[in-house]
Amino acid sequence: MVSDLDRGILIQFGKRLKSLRQSKNLTLRKMALLCNVEYADIQRYETGKQNITLLSLAELAKALDVEPRELLDFRKFDTQST
Amino acid sequence: MVSDLDRGILIQFGKRLKSLRQSKNLTLRKMALLCNVEYADIQRYETGKQNITLLSLAELAKALDVEPRELLDFRKFDTQST
Repeated sequence: MVSDLDRGILIQFGKRLKSLRQSKNLTLRKMALLCNVEYADIQRYETGKQNITLLSLAELAKALDVEPRELLDFRKFDTQST
Repeated sequence: MVSDLDRGILIQFGKRLKSLRQSKNLTLRKMALLCNVEYADIQRYETGKQNITLLSLAELAKALDVEPRELLDFRKFDTQST
């Protein structure tokens, strides 16, 4: 029961996450070793297939050495503008 | 099974949420009317008693008319610095 808008938010978040991970030269596996999040879950977040909680987001931020808010560095209404 | 650090993140998020809500002169009840989040859940988020998902966070941002990342405008390690 995920709306198109919600799906858009998850996809934007996933792209942002993947872009940050790649900018740090981390593979999914290396990143999973740096935080309490499973490899398969990181993959699902990156493809927008899974909603994430604040505490998991904070774990990912720790692994990426960024502030949690940097993971939300996308505009909420971008999905409506195309 | 929430660690002290995790509890700290939820509490910081809750304070930020409450501060934004009050700055917009919204009561919990008015805010709940503006988004798909229950009154009681907003209250639990504000008191750091409940972990929040990205999609619920986006709903709250919509009600507050802010970008989702503004709700995470706190430092991840503040809980360790006191």
